Amino acid sequence: MPVTLREFHVPTRGFTDIVDITDRVRTAVAQSGIKNGLVTVCVAGSTAGVSTIEYESGVVQDLKDAIERMAPSDIVYHHDLKWGDGNGFAHVRAAIVGSSFCVPLDSGKLVLGTWQQIVLLDFDNRPRDRRVFIQITGE
Amino acid sequence: MPVTLREFHVPTRGFTDIVDITDRVRTAVAQSGIKNGLVTVCVAGSTAGVSTIEYESGVVQDLKDAIERMAPSDIVYHHDLKWGDGNGFAHVRAAIVGSSFCVPLDSGKLVLGTWQQIVLLDFDNRPRDRRVFIQITGE
Amino acid sequence: MPVTLREFHVPTRGFTDIVDITDRVRTAVAQSGIKNGLVTVCVAGSTAGVSTIEYESGVVQDLKDAIERMAPSDIVYHHDLKWGDGNGFAHVRAAIVGSSFCVPLDSGKLVLGTWQQIVLLDFDNRPRDRRVFIQITGE
Repeated sequence: MPVTLREFHVPTRGFTDIVDITDRVRTAVAQSGIKNGLVTVCVAGSTAGVSTIEYESGVVQDLKDAIERMAPSDIVYHHDLKWGDGNGFAHVRAAIVGSSFCVPLDSGKLVLGTWQQIVLLDFDNRPRDRRVFIQITGE
Repeated sequence: MPVTLREFHVPTRGFTDIVDITDRVRTAVAQSGIKNGLVTVCVAGSTAGVSTIEYESGVVQDLKDAIERMAPSDIVYHHDLKWGDGNGFAHVRAAIVGSSFCVPLDSGKLVLGTWQQIVLLDFDNRPRDRRVFIQITGE
Repeated sequence: MPVTLREFHVPTRGFTDIVDITDRVRTAVAQSGIKNGLVTVCVAGSTAGVSTIEYESGVVQDLKDAIERMAPSDIVYHHDLKWGDGNGFAHVRAAIVGSSFCVPLDSGKLVLGTWQQIVLLDFDNRPRDRRVFIQITGE
């Protein structure tokens, strides 16, 4: 059973920038030649996350608002007091949302709902060039 | 190494309906014949999630309450202003909880705690017929 | 393709004790002999979680504070009213954070960021001896 790891880069703006990466995941999966198995999508780093949403501007804004309530950007973070990074909120947000996501692959198709896209969430306080990894195990 | 994908349907009532699906996952795993490997449980759609809890009515209510605090149903959502769906809260909740869960399979048994059940959480604002997928890779 | 399941125990103090388990995961992976594949890290039980953070004392404290806001320890939980366990907050926290985490393995190395460590979070209200499982599928 083959194992394939693919990687692509995503430029982000930070501050809970939510980017639809579904097409790029699909391309990586198609290039692997694997038709049935498990696809893991993950981002390297401690201030970003991966999840799924219906990717439309209303939901994107609602999720940004909810994440701001969950770990506000205007309170004091020990990480910032200690290191002066100013991205303490980003670390907390990433830990709760999670940095990886798994989805089955069935006859070459990702098992997702019609209105369900895979998104990269960049919580950091500056633009980043994110490394996203696609792991495919199957046959 | 075999790869198997199984699917079952779960009727839900929405509004953070939390349904214990552990037995159905176990049945799907047993039918696959795979004894050792990895089991991925996921729900298709952008208003539902998968997690684990001790499935008793107190925890179920406490989790519903916490999710209501995290993404209240009585605030304004941009998704609803734009589309009139009235389920903006459901989208936010699903994105934070996550729609898939992975658990190892060891000699035919799921590696779970004694009081740990796999649950489907339906956050939508109406009853749904949910498609749950069980992906098993192993030997 | 081999499948390996390994287990280790982690003594914890509870009350959102956050423990860096990256080195122990790396050791388990190295012992498996598998070089490329998928690594799933999970904790058995319904009052603990697994995630990744930059493991430094500031972020650890910030994450503890955020989790306390998300599911406060000083409100009433139905679980406690019913069972008297006093750990209702722990159940809610575990369900939202999640109890498993998947990361690709590439040429013997976990695909993590430079400042990204794998952590066990024990939300329970007492010290525990936690069973952590490392599932490795690959070649």
